Amino acid sequence: MARMKAHVWVMPKTTVLDPQGQTIHHALTSLGYSKVQRVRQGKFFVLDLDGLSAEEAKTQVEKIAREVLTNPVIEEFRYEIVA
Amino acid sequence: MARMKAHVWVMPKTTVLDPQGQTIHHALTSLGYSKVQRVRQGKFFVLDLDGLSAEEAKTQVEKIAREVLTNPVIEEFRYEIVA
Repeated sequence: MARMKAHVWVMPKTTVLDPQGQTIHHALTSLGYSKVQRVRQGKFFVLDLDGLSAEEAKTQVEKIAREVLTNPVIEEFRYEIVA
Repeated sequence: MARMKAHVWVMPKTTVLDPQGQTIHHALTSLGYSKVQRVRQGKFFVLDLDGLSAEEAKTQVEKIAREVLTNPVIEEFRYEIVA
């Protein structure tokens, strides 16, 4: 039962076009960054948690990531719990 | 001179309101996740790099993060280069 943080990454599935990432890639190419081969853009969340065990935190964050933060049709997620 | 990836996190500065994070926090509270104290939302970028030394990758990614990916008025960034 301590204060913890959760980090959640939500990324477009690799099979899904990523127009934001492509736009940035084009911009970088125009700016002369020819060694950048690809850009993918996703979302990153930091959740401050209090009063949960490590096991409860894992369960709740996985459920939050799956049901609230991610659109499962086009996105996938991963997460970590940090002290 | 190898293929590398760069990860860049761009987050709202801690002194800046984060309306997206606040909206998610409110939604989670409504859904019963009372142990989530705060949510911050940022962006996460994956850059595929090819043909740069580790030192060149570091220099270019820091410049890209600072000049293209981040709005320095309201955001801050960090990055890592991974093999």
